[in-house]
Amino acid sequence: MKEIYLDNSATTKVCRASADEAYRIMTEVWGNPSSLHSKGLEAEHEITASRKIIADSLKAAPEEIYFTSGGTESNNTAVFGAVGALKRRGNRIVTTAIEHSSVYESMQQLEKQGFDVVYLQPDSSGCVRTEDIKKAVTKDTILVSIMTVNNELGSIQPLSGIKRIITSASSPALFHTDFVQGYLKMPLTPKKYGIDLLSISGHKIHAPKGVGALYVRKGVRILPLHHGGMQEGKIRPGTEAAPLICAMGKAAEVYDMETNARVKALNTVFRKKLSEIDGIVFNSDENCLPYIINFSLPGFRSETLLHFLEKRNIFVSSGSACAKGHKSHVLEAMQYDAKRADSALRISFSDENCTDEANIIVNNLKIAVSTLARS
Amino acid sequence: MKEIYLDNSATTKVCRASADEAYRIMTEVWGNPSSLHSKGLEAEHEITASRKIIADSLKAAPEEIYFTSGGTESNNTAVFGAVGALKRRGNRIVTTAIEHSSVYESMQQLEKQGFDVVYLQPDSSGCVRTEDIKKAVTKDTILVSIMTVNNELGSIQPLSGIKRIITSASSPALFHTDFVQGYLKMPLTPKKYGIDLLSISGHKIHAPKGVGALYVRKGVRILPLHHGGMQEGKIRPGTEAAPLICAMGKAAEVYDMETNARVKALNTVFRKKLSEIDGIVFNSDENCLPYIINFSLPGFRSETLLHFLEKRNIFVSSGSACAKGHKSHVLEAMQYDAKRADSALRISFSDENCTDEANIIVNNLKIAVSTLARS
Repeated sequence: MKEIYLDNSATTKVCRASADEAYRIMTEVWGNPSSLHSKGLEAEHEITASRKIIADSLKAAPEEIYFTSGGTESNNTAVFGAVGALKRRGNRIVTTAIEHSSVYESMQQLEKQGFDVVYLQPDSSGCVRTEDIKKAVTKDTILVSIMTVNNELGSIQPLSGIKRIITSASSPALFHTDFVQGYLKMPLTPKKYGIDLLSISGHKIHAPKGVGALYVRKGVRILPLHHGGMQEGKIRPGTEAAPLICAMGKAAEVYDMETNARVKALNTVFRKKLSEIDGIVFNSDENCLPYIINFSLPGFRSETLLHFLEKRNIFVSSGSACAKGHKSHVLEAMQYDAKRADSALRISFSDENCTDEANIIVNNLKIAVSTLARS
Repeated sequence: MKEIYLDNSATTKVCRASADEAYRIMTEVWGNPSSLHSKGLEAEHEITASRKIIADSLKAAPEEIYFTSGGTESNNTAVFGAVGALKRRGNRIVTTAIEHSSVYESMQQLEKQGFDVVYLQPDSSGCVRTEDIKKAVTKDTILVSIMTVNNELGSIQPLSGIKRIITSASSPALFHTDFVQGYLKMPLTPKKYGIDLLSISGHKIHAPKGVGALYVRKGVRILPLHHGGMQEGKIRPGTEAAPLICAMGKAAEVYDMETNARVKALNTVFRKKLSEIDGIVFNSDENCLPYIINFSLPGFRSETLLHFLEKRNIFVSSGSACAKGHKSHVLEAMQYDAKRADSALRISFSDENCTDEANIIVNNLKIAVSTLARS
């Protein structure tokens, strides 16, 4: 039975070029990038090359890219780093109720520490409203952290007016966006939107797990989360994970930007086919990033459906992998009734998927609907 | 010209078994360990196997091992995590003046936050004294963080009495040790010494850079440094770096424990041969971990010697790689005169070194001493 992997927002298959690059660095360029001798310099050059690739992909400068251990660390560094640097200038933080847990739980920590955190609620399309952001940002707001693409729904948040809102409010706020789900999958450059801090992750773009990056706009100062050596401008000390950093650079370099158009076409085919299923409700609307389709089959539990499909070699998600079956705070914020929330499934694409797979998953879901007991 | 790598305390060459394991996980078991379907479970099983290997190597339980991005993160998590958990019970922290920068600079941060940090000074052998630890630990001490093996000198700190000292002082302190330089290179189990928190790193034992682990004794509660998903018992959230975690497990599994005896013999040969050099002063004494020999050639600058050797394909360090040429706070704490401190070199072994290399490096150092201008 052909394997159909439709869980690319959880993680992607490491592409051969990226795995090979990691292997090359592990076996051939294994020096410590901080060593003063040539073994160190060779490793440092490789990291520099990777930094340039990532910077170019964001139309940023290499010195604005800081490598981390992944999206979670990038988000934590951005949120705590910004608040640490600006806490004397205000007490308010504006974010959304649908952030990834690495932002959401960081915010809950900051709330416990006494910060006034405003969680903007999404509308029925899974997006926060620009007018709500405007109302929330005050002159003592020190951070606005709003994701680009929601990881469960694929909904694209309205980032374009935010910088102006911050300026109009005479707020010192830094503007952070979690770009993990959008990176390379949609055109966005931090400069265009006035973004100060932007998080990306390797394993969502066919690089290995364990590496990510944080864009920090030139001139922006944040406090580091970790303390130690001189690496990564002291924003992220510790011996650089050279094999993974170079593997991420390679994955970004070989990412086929035409995938985006192909996935858009794929999305249309899947949505059309999925809509044949009795009782299906789409949680992702047509304005969402095409890589993600979230839908519910009210009356059937997500996990039951997930395992039903798994037995047929089809892999999907019941929500964010990071939540591991726990109730999704995103779907809660969407205020779906219990039946809709409890039956949500997310399918997510990469360039390894094809239109044939739409028939297969839909046929199997039709069987599920007609054979499984309703809850 | 044969390459002679004598900088194994900075980093080691990734062993083939470890690199192959990383590659296998990247290309074959690339699921997200948090995914609910079998692709996630497969990846989780691999991580579980690696956790057991690391736990066994420390005679610990698997649930006491938390994977991190490396030694720096392990040390930061231990220090800030312990202080965060216990700050209501006291204000004093006891550490040494010769910790690795990832502990040392964390302590300086905590000092800025108002904690009373006691930095114990080393004696002439590079060790702090048990009686000084005893004097320093009071009933409001919340953390004792003392490294096992100093990374520049190889000096082994007196860990054996510390737990008793903490108990006798009726102190709530957690006992942390940075074991990065000692792991697998000397017998030490956290249980035997009553250690609560213990840091290790992968790339010092022939695993790739970018992975480490923190041992947290069962029952000990620390606050996490990162916030987000449910991974690693929430002590270290974020998608697990499965390829590196498994590569670290593999490197630990294949580590030849007989290397320790071989390196001890190697150390004897090197010390004997090095002592032929006019004016040499050993900074590491014979009680140091055999993997490290630090010595000075007063009158010659470390960096000059390092580059002189590098041209002859011999790679050594002028101190810790993390300091990248900056003045070493360790040698400063040793109160060496400027000539001695400025001419220090560290050579450090792995099982790839052999006795022949002693002749080669010493002959070259003799040439250096007779041809280079004295500073």
